[in-house]
Amino acid sequence: MHFYDHIPKIQYEGSKSLNPFAFKYYDPKEMIFGKPMKDHLKFSLAYWHTLTGEGIDPFGKATMEREWDTITDPIERAKVRVKVAFELMEKLGMEYFCFHDRDIAPEQETLAETNRVLDEIVAVIEQEMKRTQIKLLWGTANLFANKRFVNGASTSPNADVFAYSAAQVKKALEITHRLNGAGYVFWGGREGYETLLNTDMKLELDNFARFLHMAVDYAKEIGFLGQFYIEPKPKEPTKHQYDFDSATVISFLHQYGLDKDFKLNIETNHATLATHTMNHELRLAADNGFLGSIDANQGDLLLGWDTDQFPTSIVDATLVMYEVLRMGGFTTGGLNFDAKVRRASFTKDDLLIAHIAGMDTYAAGLRIAAKLWKDQVLETNLKQRYRSYTQGIGKDIVENKVGFKELSAYVMNKNTLEPNEPGKQEWLESIINQYMIG
Amino acid sequence: MHFYDHIPKIQYEGSKSLNPFAFKYYDPKEMIFGKPMKDHLKFSLAYWHTLTGEGIDPFGKATMEREWDTITDPIERAKVRVKVAFELMEKLGMEYFCFHDRDIAPEQETLAETNRVLDEIVAVIEQEMKRTQIKLLWGTANLFANKRFVNGASTSPNADVFAYSAAQVKKALEITHRLNGAGYVFWGGREGYETLLNTDMKLELDNFARFLHMAVDYAKEIGFLGQFYIEPKPKEPTKHQYDFDSATVISFLHQYGLDKDFKLNIETNHATLATHTMNHELRLAADNGFLGSIDANQGDLLLGWDTDQFPTSIVDATLVMYEVLRMGGFTTGGLNFDAKVRRASFTKDDLLIAHIAGMDTYAAGLRIAAKLWKDQVLETNLKQRYRSYTQGIGKDIVENKVGFKELSAYVMNKNTLEPNEPGKQEWLESIINQYMIG
Amino acid sequence: MHFYDHIPKIQYEGSKSLNPFAFKYYDPKEMIFGKPMKDHLKFSLAYWHTLTGEGIDPFGKATMEREWDTITDPIERAKVRVKVAFELMEKLGMEYFCFHDRDIAPEQETLAETNRVLDEIVAVIEQEMKRTQIKLLWGTANLFANKRFVNGASTSPNADVFAYSAAQVKKALEITHRLNGAGYVFWGGREGYETLLNTDMKLELDNFARFLHMAVDYAKEIGFLGQFYIEPKPKEPTKHQYDFDSATVISFLHQYGLDKDFKLNIETNHATLATHTMNHELRLAADNGFLGSIDANQGDLLLGWDTDQFPTSIVDATLVMYEVLRMGGFTTGGLNFDAKVRRASFTKDDLLIAHIAGMDTYAAGLRIAAKLWKDQVLETNLKQRYRSYTQGIGKDIVENKVGFKELSAYVMNKNTLEPNEPGKQEWLESIINQYMIG
Amino acid sequence: MHFYDHIPKIQYEGSKSLNPFAFKYYDPKEMIFGKPMKDHLKFSLAYWHTLTGEGIDPFGKATMEREWDTITDPIERAKVRVKVAFELMEKLGMEYFCFHDRDIAPEQETLAETNRVLDEIVAVIEQEMKRTQIKLLWGTANLFANKRFVNGASTSPNADVFAYSAAQVKKALEITHRLNGAGYVFWGGREGYETLLNTDMKLELDNFARFLHMAVDYAKEIGFLGQFYIEPKPKEPTKHQYDFDSATVISFLHQYGLDKDFKLNIETNHATLATHTMNHELRLAADNGFLGSIDANQGDLLLGWDTDQFPTSIVDATLVMYEVLRMGGFTTGGLNFDAKVRRASFTKDDLLIAHIAGMDTYAAGLRIAAKLWKDQVLETNLKQRYRSYTQGIGKDIVENKVGFKELSAYVMNKNTLEPNEPGKQEWLESIINQYMIG
Repeated sequence: MHFYDHIPKIQYEGSKSLNPFAFKYYDPKEMIFGKPMKDHLKFSLAYWHTLTGEGIDPFGKATMEREWDTITDPIERAKVRVKVAFELMEKLGMEYFCFHDRDIAPEQETLAETNRVLDEIVAVIEQEMKRTQIKLLWGTANLFANKRFVNGASTSPNADVFAYSAAQVKKALEITHRLNGAGYVFWGGREGYETLLNTDMKLELDNFARFLHMAVDYAKEIGFLGQFYIEPKPKEPTKHQYDFDSATVISFLHQYGLDKDFKLNIETNHATLATHTMNHELRLAADNGFLGSIDANQGDLLLGWDTDQFPTSIVDATLVMYEVLRMGGFTTGGLNFDAKVRRASFTKDDLLIAHIAGMDTYAAGLRIAAKLWKDQVLETNLKQRYRSYTQGIGKDIVENKVGFKELSAYVMNKNTLEPNEPGKQEWLESIINQYMIG
Repeated sequence: MHFYDHIPKIQYEGSKSLNPFAFKYYDPKEMIFGKPMKDHLKFSLAYWHTLTGEGIDPFGKATMEREWDTITDPIERAKVRVKVAFELMEKLGMEYFCFHDRDIAPEQETLAETNRVLDEIVAVIEQEMKRTQIKLLWGTANLFANKRFVNGASTSPNADVFAYSAAQVKKALEITHRLNGAGYVFWGGREGYETLLNTDMKLELDNFARFLHMAVDYAKEIGFLGQFYIEPKPKEPTKHQYDFDSATVISFLHQYGLDKDFKLNIETNHATLATHTMNHELRLAADNGFLGSIDANQGDLLLGWDTDQFPTSIVDATLVMYEVLRMGGFTTGGLNFDAKVRRASFTKDDLLIAHIAGMDTYAAGLRIAAKLWKDQVLETNLKQRYRSYTQGIGKDIVENKVGFKELSAYVMNKNTLEPNEPGKQEWLESIINQYMIG
Repeated sequence: MHFYDHIPKIQYEGSKSLNPFAFKYYDPKEMIFGKPMKDHLKFSLAYWHTLTGEGIDPFGKATMEREWDTITDPIERAKVRVKVAFELMEKLGMEYFCFHDRDIAPEQETLAETNRVLDEIVAVIEQEMKRTQIKLLWGTANLFANKRFVNGASTSPNADVFAYSAAQVKKALEITHRLNGAGYVFWGGREGYETLLNTDMKLELDNFARFLHMAVDYAKEIGFLGQFYIEPKPKEPTKHQYDFDSATVISFLHQYGLDKDFKLNIETNHATLATHTMNHELRLAADNGFLGSIDANQGDLLLGWDTDQFPTSIVDATLVMYEVLRMGGFTTGGLNFDAKVRRASFTKDDLLIAHIAGMDTYAAGLRIAAKLWKDQVLETNLKQRYRSYTQGIGKDIVENKVGFKELSAYVMNKNTLEPNEPGKQEWLESIINQYMIG
Repeated sequence: MHFYDHIPKIQYEGSKSLNPFAFKYYDPKEMIFGKPMKDHLKFSLAYWHTLTGEGIDPFGKATMEREWDTITDPIERAKVRVKVAFELMEKLGMEYFCFHDRDIAPEQETLAETNRVLDEIVAVIEQEMKRTQIKLLWGTANLFANKRFVNGASTSPNADVFAYSAAQVKKALEITHRLNGAGYVFWGGREGYETLLNTDMKLELDNFARFLHMAVDYAKEIGFLGQFYIEPKPKEPTKHQYDFDSATVISFLHQYGLDKDFKLNIETNHATLATHTMNHELRLAADNGFLGSIDANQGDLLLGWDTDQFPTSIVDATLVMYEVLRMGGFTTGGLNFDAKVRRASFTKDDLLIAHIAGMDTYAAGLRIAAKLWKDQVLETNLKQRYRSYTQGIGKDIVENKVGFKELSAYVMNKNTLEPNEPGKQEWLESIINQYMIG
C-alpha cells in the first residue's frame, strides 16, 4: 500500500533546481570533516505531527487531507500509518524517527488492552525498520492528552495517576528497548502548575524526581542502554512547566542526583518561548555535558505560543549546527523535526515539501557552520578576546592563586588598567552573513 | 539641615484618612502573630533610586527637583544626601536602608582616592545610624555603571577588570561590615552577554564563581557574618544576564559549591521580566532554603523593561507576604523598595508619597496574608488535594517503596483509578478577593 | 429536565458568606445612581464556552464532565443544552446570553439542512426566552472552526468561501433578529493572514469591508435594528488578525464608510494580547463614540495566548466599570462572560462557581467605580491638571486662534514657562486602593 | 580637521573581500531595473546615534571613544561634529542625513539664544552640503529630552509647553527648509501617557492634531514643500505612545483631516515592538498610499525595548526592499540608519564597520528582492491564489453586484464549493532561501 508513488525518491539537485520535490542543499553523501552530511544531521521524523497531526487549532477543526485516515478501523488505520511513515522516510532518505506511545497505537478501554494493541503495531514497525534500516532515535510516552492527566502525570495530586503514568512509561520503555531506540525522552507535558494557590510545588518536584529515578532503575533492569533526555519547555500547556529551560532542568538533575543519567533534548521553539536564543540553550547544555539531542523547528517570535514550524531560517540553523560541530557532533542524538505543516498546508504532498524545506535549511546551515568552524573565525576572535586570562594576573585568577587582597594590591599598584577591547558585534554579524550568502 | 520640616512624621491614620502624608494601612506597632507589623515587613530605603535617581530615561534628561542637589561640591553633596536619606527614613519610620558603594560617594580619579572619600561618607552614615538606630539591611557594589565594566565585571574578558572588581568589592565588603550590614548583595549588572558570537560563556561563568568564592573567603577573613545574596534578573542591561531567575541561580550555586554561602534577593520586576510570577520565584527559593530578602517593587507586564515602580498592587503584596509568613518570616532579609518615583513625580514630596503608597500596599498585603494564613484556607485545601500521598499506594510512592513494576501491577489490578478532583482555581481566586476587600 | 436541582437559586449573602453558591458582592437590586446593579452590569452568558466548551487544549483532550453531553443524538443534545443554559442563567439571575450559530446547533451535511436544524433549536430557545424573560445580547456566526475557513471567511482567497460565509451570516442575522437580539457581533476569526508571502492584503481588506456592507444592507432589508459590533483581536488563530485593536478597527470603519453602522465589542484578554490595557481600549473607543459592548474575562499577562479566564481581578473590573459609568452606561451592550472554566475545573458545579466569581468581581468593581465617580476624584484631578487650556494661551490653542508664529512670539516674550506639575501616579494608584479595600 | 585619514574611502570589493573597511555587497553604481543601487537605497546617516550617541544605557555611563568630543566648548564641539558627520558620509559614500535640532547644536539659556546658535551650526552644515553634494533627507525637533517635556510636548497638560513646542518646531521647519530637506518627521517622543488615571486622552489627541495642522500651515507659509511624516512607535519612552503603529497613525490622520499632508516614516524596531512584522507595517502603509520613508535598523525580538541595532538580517532587508520595489521605489524618502553601535563597539572605527554592515545587508537584500520581483515569483503565486475573484461569483463580489441574498442563493444551488488550495508557506519560505543563498 503506497501513497506517494507519484513522487520519486527525493534527490539532491543543487541550489538551482526548480523542482519542489528535490533537495537544493541536502546532499546526504557530501563529506564534511570526513563524515557524510547525513551523519552530521541525523534527521528524524516526528511521528505525532506527521502521522497524527490533524490541523486542529484552538479555534478550528481538522484540515489535513490524508486519504489513509479514511480507514475507519482504528487499529488498521494505525498500521497503515506505519507504512506511510516509512514510505515518507524512504522518499526523504531520513534514517531516524521518534514517537510517543499513543501516536503509533490508539488507546483502548484498559491499559492491558492498550498495551496489547501497542505490541501489535510495534511488530509492524519492527518489520518496517528491518526492511528499511531506519532507526528509532527515541521513544516517549504521551502523559498529557488523556483527561486523567488533567492535573499532571508524575506530578499529579492523585497518586493513582502517578501509578498509571509509571505503568505507561514502563511499557513505553519496553517498546523503545524492543525497537532498539537510541534514547528515551521525557517531555513535561502537564508536569507544572496552573496556579500556586492550589499547588504543593515541593511535593510535586520530589515526585517528579522519584518518577525519573524509577525510570532509570527500570531501564537498568531490562537492559535498556539508550540515553535518557529531558526536554525543557517554559509554558504551555500548563502556565508554568517545571522543566522551564536548560538551566532549570540542569539544576533539577543535579539537585536530585539525576545528572549522570539524563541529557537534554532541546527544542528551538521552546528556547524562544523561554526568551532565550536557541544557541544559548545549546551552549549552556553543551558546556555542562548535557547536550543530547535537538528538536529542530522554529517558532514565531511575535507570537506567544508553540507554533512548531518547519525550520526555514538558515542563520538559525547555522548557529545550531555550529554548536553541534563545536561539541564534536551528535552521539545518541539527532535532529528531530518536531514541526508540523501549517494548517493551510493540508495536502499530503505538503508533508514532503515541508520536510524538504527543513532538511535543506539544516543542510545549508551545516555547510556554513562547517566553513566557519574550519576557518575558526569565531574561535580565533575568542582566543584574542580572552587572552588576558592566559598570562599574568589573569592566569593567576583562573588558577585560583589570588584573592581579593592580592587583586586589590595589584590594582592599587597599577596606574591604569589594560584598556577594554570593543565587542565587535556588528562585524561578527556581517562575517556570518558573508559566510551565509557567499 | 532639614528638607522636610513642612511635613510631620508620617502617622497611621487608618483607611479613611484623606491626608496624603499619613499611613492608611501601615500601623508599625500593630501586632500580628505576636510580632509588630514593622518587624514582619522590615522596610528598607533604596539609596540609589531615592537619593541619586535623577529621572533620566533612554530618551530624556533629569527631571527630579532636589534642592540639595544644587550643592556643587560632589563630596559635600554626598554628605547632605546622607542627611536627606535619614530624614526621609525618620519621617517614614523606616528602620533599614540599602546602598551601592557609588550611590553614597562619588568616584574619584583613583581607586585609593575613591576609597578615601567613601570612608569619609561612611563616617557620616555611621553617625546618622547611631543617632537614629536605623540599620543597614545590605550593601553592594556598583560594578556596571562605569565604562570599565562595559564587557562585564567578574565576567569581563579583561583580567584587569576582574581584578578591579575584586578590589572594589573588597572595599564594599569592608564598609558593609563597618556599618554592621545584615547582608551583602551581588546583582549581576553586566555579568552576562550581548552575543554568543564573541562570548566564552564557560570561562565567564567559572570566573563569576571564582569571584564569589573570593568574596566568601574575604568575608571570613574580616569577620563579616552577614548573609550573602544573589539577585536574579533575566535581561537588561545585557541581553542575557547569567543570573536569569531563581532556578538558574540555584543551579549555579549548587554547581560551584556556593550553595551554603548564598541566598537569593528576589525582585518582583525581575521575576516578571523572566516571565515568572513573583510568588513562583519566592516559593521555589523558599522550598530550597534560598529565600533571603526581597526587592519590593512592581513592573508593568505590558512593558518589556525594568520599570521599578513603587508597589501598589495589593493582591501581589498579599501573595508575597503569604510566602514570607509561610517560611516563618525574614531572618536577615527585609523588604527593600527597589523602586523609583515616576519620572513625572518629580517633587521632593513625591518621594514621601510614593514610599507611603508602597508601605501601605505591603501593610495591607500583610494583614490579608495573615488572615489567610491564620485561617489556613489554602493549606487546608492543599492537604485535601494531596491526601492520596499520605496513604496506600501514594504513601508507598513518597516513601520510595515501589518502582515501575509494582506500580504497573497495581494499575493492572485496579479496575478504575481514583477520580481526579477539580483544581478550583476560580474559587480560590474569589476567596483571595473576599479576604482582600472584606 | 433539570441538572442543578441540588443548588438553589444563587442569592446575595454579603461579603462574609462562606457559601460557595452565594453572591458576596452582587446584589442585583442594589441601587447605584438610581439604577439597579443588574442594569449597570447586564451580565451575559457565553453559550460557546459554557455549553460547548470541552476542556480541550492544544495538548489535551476533553476534560469536562457534563452528564447532558452523554446524549448521543446531536440534535437532542443541542436541545438539552438549551435547557441547561437557561437553568444556569436562572440560577445565576443572568438576564442575557450570546451565541454563535454553530454553538446552539450542530452543522449538517448541507447548509440548507444545517439551517433547518438551526431553526428547530431556535424555536426551543425562543420558548425558553419567553418562559424566563432572558434576552439575547447578541448573536454571531462561527466562520472559523470548519475546515472550509482555513484561509479565512470573507477574506478567503476562495470566492466560494466568501459566498458561503455570506449565506451563513444571512441566516445568523435572521435568527438573531427572530430572537430579538440587541446586537450582532463580527469577530474576525480567521480574517487575517499567516504570512504576507501568500497574501493580497488589500483585496482581503476590501472584501472584508464589502462583506460588512452586505450585512448592513441585509439587516436593513429584514428590519433588524440591533447594533452591529466588531470585536478586535490582534492574533490567534491567525498570526495577524485584521481587527488588531480598537484603533485599527476604528481606522478600518472610517476608511470603508462603516463608522455609522458599527461599534466595538471589546474583550479584556484581546486588549492585553495587543499589549494595551483594557481601559486604554475602552477609553479610545468611548472617546470616539464606538464603545458598544464588553467581553468580560481576563488573560494571563505572562502567557502569550488567549486564556479566556473568568475575571477575578477587582482592580481591573473597577477600571472597566469606571469607563462604563463615564460613558453613561451601556445602551445595547453588556458584560458578556467570554470566559471558560479552567480545564481542571471540570465539574458542572464549577460552571456556577466561576460565574459567581466573575459576577462578584464585577459587582465589587462597580461599587468601587461608582464611589470614585461620585466623588469625582479622578475628574477633579484632571480638571486641575489641564486647567491651562481653559484660559489665556491655552484657551487660544484649543479655540484654534493661534499658530506657530503667534505661539513662538508668545514664548519669546515670556521669560519663563509656567512650571509643569507632577503626574502623581503613585498617589492616584494609592487612592484607587483606598477606594478598593476601604 | 580629519579623523578618519587612516581609512580610505570605502570601496566595493565584492563578497570575497576580507577587508573590514570595504563593501562586500554594496556597489553604488550597479544598475538594478535601470537605476543605480544607491538610488534605490538612498542611505541616510542618523546624526543623533552617530554623532551624539554616548553609549549610555539605563544602568551605565558613556562608553564611546570620540576624540572630537574632548573639545570643551560646546559650540566648537558641535561644529567639529558636523565635520565628522560629513567625513563619515564621504567615506561611506552616503548621500543623505537626518537630524533633530538638538543633535546638531546645544540648547542655550533661552530659546532665542538657542536659535541663534542653531543658525550658526546650520551655516556650517550648509557649507558642507555644498562642498559634498550630500542632502538632507529629513529634519525633526527633539521634543522629548528636556525636562520641560516630562508630560509631553503638544500633548502636555501645560499649555506653555505646547506653545514652546510650537516655537521650537517653527524653527526646526525653518532650518529644514533652509537646508532644502526633502522631508520633516514627527516622532511622538512623549506624545502618549503613563497612566490613564491622570490623562485626558481626548484633549491630548485633539491638541496633537492641532499642532500638526499648525505645522502644515506654517510650512505653506514659508514655502516648505518637503514631505511631512509621522513615525509610529508603540511604547517607550511613555507607556503608551499615541502613534502606536501604522494603523493607529493612519486612523488618526484620517480622523483629523491630516491624511493629505502626512506620510509615514516606519522603523523596523518600532514595528516589532508593536508585535508586527516590518513588512506588515510597510504593506499596510503602502497599500493606503502612506509609505514615505524607512528607519532601517533591527530590534531583538527577545528583548522588550528599542535596541536600535544596525540591520544585519538579510532576510528582513530583502522583505523590506521587496515592499519598496513593489511600491515603485522611494520618492521623498530613503533608508535612514536609525541605529546605534552597540555599547561595546566603542571605537570610532566601529562607526564605519557598523554602517558598512548595515549598507551591505540592505544591498544584499535589494539584489535578492530585485531577483524575486523580476521573476514575479510571489506575484504569480498571488494571482493564481486569488484568481477566483477575477471571474464568476468572485468577480460579482468585487464588483459589488451581489449581496447576501444572491450569495446565499448561489451557495444553496451549488452542490459543493470550490476546494480551498493550500497556503504553501513552507514552500514560499524555501523559495526565499534559494533566492537568498543561491
